[in-house]
Amino acid sequence: MGNKMQNRRTERGTFFPPFWRLDNHYVLVDFRREVECLSDDDVEVLTEGKYNCKVDGKMASGAPGMLHLARGKHVLELKVYNQDSPPALSMRSRSFAADSGWMVTFEDKEWIDASGKASDKSGTVWLPAEVSRFGVPPSQWRLSVEPRPAMSVVRGAGSLLVDFGKESFGYVRLHGVKGRGRVSLFYGESKEEALSVDSCEVLDKIDVLGDTVLEGSRAFRYVNIRCEGGVRVDSASMLFEYLPVAQRGSFRCSDQEINKIWDVSAYTLHLNTREFFIDGIKRDRWIWSGDAYQSYLMNYYLYFDSASVTRTLWALRGKDPVTSHINTIMDYSFYWFLGIYDYYQYTGDASYIRLSYPRMVSLMNFIRGRRNKNGWLEGLPGDWLFIDWADGLSKKGEVSFEQLLYVRSLETMALCAGLAGDGDASQKYGEEAGEMKKKLFTDFWDEKRKAFRHSSLGGVTRYSNMFGIFFGYFDAQQQDAVKRGVLLNDSVQKITTPYMRFYELEALCATGDQGRVLKEMKDYWGGMLSLGATSFWEQYDPGVKGVQRYAMYGRPFGKSLCHAWGASPIYLLGKYYLGVRPLEPGYQRYEVRPVLGGMQWMEGDVPTPHGNVRVYCSRKEIRVGSVSGNGVLRFNSRSKPVCKEGVIREVGKNGYEVDLEGGKEYTVKYVATE
Amino acid sequence: MGNKMQNRRTERGTFFPPFWRLDNHYVLVDFRREVECLSDDDVEVLTEGKYNCKVDGKMASGAPGMLHLARGKHVLELKVYNQDSPPALSMRSRSFAADSGWMVTFEDKEWIDASGKASDKSGTVWLPAEVSRFGVPPSQWRLSVEPRPAMSVVRGAGSLLVDFGKESFGYVRLHGVKGRGRVSLFYGESKEEALSVDSCEVLDKIDVLGDTVLEGSRAFRYVNIRCEGGVRVDSASMLFEYLPVAQRGSFRCSDQEINKIWDVSAYTLHLNTREFFIDGIKRDRWIWSGDAYQSYLMNYYLYFDSASVTRTLWALRGKDPVTSHINTIMDYSFYWFLGIYDYYQYTGDASYIRLSYPRMVSLMNFIRGRRNKNGWLEGLPGDWLFIDWADGLSKKGEVSFEQLLYVRSLETMALCAGLAGDGDASQKYGEEAGEMKKKLFTDFWDEKRKAFRHSSLGGVTRYSNMFGIFFGYFDAQQQDAVKRGVLLNDSVQKITTPYMRFYELEALCATGDQGRVLKEMKDYWGGMLSLGATSFWEQYDPGVKGVQRYAMYGRPFGKSLCHAWGASPIYLLGKYYLGVRPLEPGYQRYEVRPVLGGMQWMEGDVPTPHGNVRVYCSRKEIRVGSVSGNGVLRFNSRSKPVCKEGVIREVGKNGYEVDLEGGKEYTVKYVATE
Repeated sequence: MGNKMQNRRTERGTFFPPFWRLDNHYVLVDFRREVECLSDDDVEVLTEGKYNCKVDGKMASGAPGMLHLARGKHVLELKVYNQDSPPALSMRSRSFAADSGWMVTFEDKEWIDASGKASDKSGTVWLPAEVSRFGVPPSQWRLSVEPRPAMSVVRGAGSLLVDFGKESFGYVRLHGVKGRGRVSLFYGESKEEALSVDSCEVLDKIDVLGDTVLEGSRAFRYVNIRCEGGVRVDSASMLFEYLPVAQRGSFRCSDQEINKIWDVSAYTLHLNTREFFIDGIKRDRWIWSGDAYQSYLMNYYLYFDSASVTRTLWALRGKDPVTSHINTIMDYSFYWFLGIYDYYQYTGDASYIRLSYPRMVSLMNFIRGRRNKNGWLEGLPGDWLFIDWADGLSKKGEVSFEQLLYVRSLETMALCAGLAGDGDASQKYGEEAGEMKKKLFTDFWDEKRKAFRHSSLGGVTRYSNMFGIFFGYFDAQQQDAVKRGVLLNDSVQKITTPYMRFYELEALCATGDQGRVLKEMKDYWGGMLSLGATSFWEQYDPGVKGVQRYAMYGRPFGKSLCHAWGASPIYLLGKYYLGVRPLEPGYQRYEVRPVLGGMQWMEGDVPTPHGNVRVYCSRKEIRVGSVSGNGVLRFNSRSKPVCKEGVIREVGKNGYEVDLEGGKEYTVKYVATE
Repeated sequence: MGNKMQNRRTERGTFFPPFWRLDNHYVLVDFRREVECLSDDDVEVLTEGKYNCKVDGKMASGAPGMLHLARGKHVLELKVYNQDSPPALSMRSRSFAADSGWMVTFEDKEWIDASGKASDKSGTVWLPAEVSRFGVPPSQWRLSVEPRPAMSVVRGAGSLLVDFGKESFGYVRLHGVKGRGRVSLFYGESKEEALSVDSCEVLDKIDVLGDTVLEGSRAFRYVNIRCEGGVRVDSASMLFEYLPVAQRGSFRCSDQEINKIWDVSAYTLHLNTREFFIDGIKRDRWIWSGDAYQSYLMNYYLYFDSASVTRTLWALRGKDPVTSHINTIMDYSFYWFLGIYDYYQYTGDASYIRLSYPRMVSLMNFIRGRRNKNGWLEGLPGDWLFIDWADGLSKKGEVSFEQLLYVRSLETMALCAGLAGDGDASQKYGEEAGEMKKKLFTDFWDEKRKAFRHSSLGGVTRYSNMFGIFFGYFDAQQQDAVKRGVLLNDSVQKITTPYMRFYELEALCATGDQGRVLKEMKDYWGGMLSLGATSFWEQYDPGVKGVQRYAMYGRPFGKSLCHAWGASPIYLLGKYYLGVRPLEPGYQRYEVRPVLGGMQWMEGDVPTPHGNVRVYCSRKEIRVGSVSGNGVLRFNSRSKPVCKEGVIREVGKNGYEVDLEGGKEYTVKYVATE
């Protein structure tokens, strides 16, 4: 599915595939399971692929569509071969659920000797089968579609300029087609792009006879439809294409602009949450690890759709051996590690860590094989150091940002090795992470500027400094100095992508500066809205004016106006304002620390594995409700707060805590200190 | 192609796939080439897969079927994506040959930055593209077919027993089909098997309406066709399916039985030389490394079809990482190394060694990771030690046969590392091979029995002892003792497969005992012929009588009666009787050492990269002719020999040599010493 999706990109009608390795599925898979039938059972067998089937070690004849199982325990073994799409199996039984307990391997090593005796299979590595939630054979699964009308049409001579009112993704339908001939469709995320037949990024040219649905799904708000020859098109609509995923998170507050920012963020993430988490809907539509990492985090505050996270992580990693960084980008390899650990923190699903751990080890071995004599990572041939889109950003020498991510990845390895039961490795990674963290300060800390240098070549940029804050690598003095000397220092190169603004604002939130961040959100995301954005952009520099705003990569409309990384307010508002986050994996324990940051009131839902946590907060009242799990509410109050449903503890000056039990609603009367 | 072929096996109509990992193709491949056009040229572009195309770094619009190239030098770059079959490219040009000079990679790591600037691509690993010799798009290539009639038919009530006269492979055609209903086909390599509807190994049941060609290609001599319901079948023929490969080798001699053995061997190898070298045509039809290794060697004396060797070696190895021995069998991993080195010896194609070397290293690393504390290889979970089909053969402990193959593989690694330009590794492997070869004698040589022990647990078998001879691991005294005490000692368990008889007879030939081997060939292969064999068998034990001969794997007709490893007389007669073999890679220098071994005369062709070497030898005259290359003729004579075309040198008692120049024919008058 990933291969098909990532090879759908076109650039002005020309096929444009990825430049990294695409792995393919295992064509031959053995499925194995023990079942217990409480009565005689006729079990229906459906596969995608040619197959055979053993029951209790005895081969069934042919490829039986139905298996009769007598009451009692049985061992089922099926071998499925499918060259075209991943081998898949479905069984319908009265006795056992179809979707769990199956183990798979790509080589069962089960041979027989000359006498017919089978080997003992003890060399076989069995893994839990992936369970499809799609309800159809996996190869037949498609995103959902629904019809959407055009909002307005401007008709010209042999042309239509159709406006769908907002950023959309789907298949254009041409209605009232008369005659035959060529129709060209020039798509635009902006009206200017659609009208620029020479420079728009995405176009289709097709020969039509009668009403037509375009074959390729495209991103657009505007479509400029031009007819040649005798053909005429009356009108157009679209089939909007989307992943049906429930929006469990919500946010509302006293500030209408922030509400609009949250809504447009949610819509932006929705458009980019598809077969996988993609970067942006217009251009690449590829799976980029750094982009996806932010989508995972936003997802935990909007959908909590774990399957989207795990299938994206898995598709990014591919098979062994590792021959390049993920997406060829050094930082993107590191984000992959971080994404796995976050997934565990939010979901508590340790089984996925165990499944991923061998591929974490091989990727880490690849990375460690590329260290320089100082133990740091510099760009070697074939390595892309991305960091951010920023003019003149140096990638030479030992770049401190990459080293910070490397240290964080080592810490992640230590944690995951422990979860995977590899205690020795856990200790080894942990010790190394500790040493290298110290060395970060030896090698990159500039005592005079009180900040991390950009690289061994000097200079100061925001990147490693802001990550240092929310990684918790600084002491209080260092953090304060970094905040003042870098984050709040306009002479340090500014960030112009929502991608890095995500982390910049997260760092400020981590220092408790939600008030400032709220203003920044209103300025930056509000700035895009004031320019008519209906989704958030790949890059936004308030200093750039007019149609130049749409240019990037040396092309006038190269920029994507609907980029997943533009949706970070979802995460910031959920985690740092509603203030909900797990304290123990899978929200076994969680914190609610509401911070208004200048709003009069706010309310919203944060999804967890045990249902939503619902938070309301005004300057005088906090209400929190949840379905299950144990939480703690933390807040500041000028006066002694009151809560009938729980016990309030005082923690330091003006600080208070209330333990939260699942299934109860708590109301706290207090007076906000902000 | 390998996946498709290896997943065609059925057992009594039930799908029966391999039990090792099957890798899949890279779905996205970049092709790159520099060309020079001597004049303006319109170049036709054909691909299997979706593609784009850059000329001199500039992307062409869409997927152009024709490229206009101006006079001069150009760089062509195409990216081809194909999920279903390997991406392939064909270009037709007046200026440059379509089939050479293309380089490929599965990740070009070519990204662009925000300004549109491309990366330098210096991290890309380019490999030479595989050139198809098939003349059709690779995915469309099929084996050839030609109609063959039945030789005789026995008609019963609603049944036909059809005899095709000899072992065959292909698609049965049903003629004169009237009515509709079910037709069952029971295939037999023997008449008994075809008649055994309950136990024949291969069968088809189809519903027919009108004349029909069966979908699956099968191996058979006999087909028992049974009709049910209202259907009647009048007669049957077949479409014989084969790889069109020229038979360049030949052999004729004064002994008609040997001639027949050679012919049936050639037919046996022909039937088993298909998409790849397979084990046998009836049952597995899989690529087994140990079986294929013998086919490579026979091929050098029959077809010299290098492409069949290289595509078989490549398919066997698959992709990294190594997760099991080749075919899960320890010995089969070792044969893979040996096959690569032999390929170089016979063809001189060092480029294939360089291509294979990284995968040789990773397989060797896998193997070395499984050594025990003594540095030897014992069977670990998932390892199959095959050695041979032989009753009660122990695979426990350190089996000396496996260690011999391991040492030989280390020697091979030393040679191939040198060819691949990895001098350090070559030295390291060489030193280790030397040490372990000494340790073979310390650990396994039984000074009392003057033979290698079967294993660390004791006993003596033929396997390591016969390999020790033709590996040249023994000194003259040891060799003589091994020959008498093991090879010629009937109390040592006898070999019952042509597979190991190959090596047993090669060992005897290597000691100069062609006379004995000729008798053994007549006994053993002649024994099969006298039982009516039209192709040679998987196993033949003269002591087993009647229909029991066809039993194996605990099944009455489990045995394959057309097994590639049965064809070894081709190799033995070419290498040890006609006596032709390369002395330097690719027959740059070669030896002709004719040995009659009891025949009155023999003549034949041995293919080389430079054309055939033609040898005639009687007891009084030797004639040798070749197209090119430099050879040396070696022979013994009772009297002083005479040769007008060359200079005869005397070498020891009764020994003579004549240097052979390419393009000349030499006639030597002599008197045979045998």
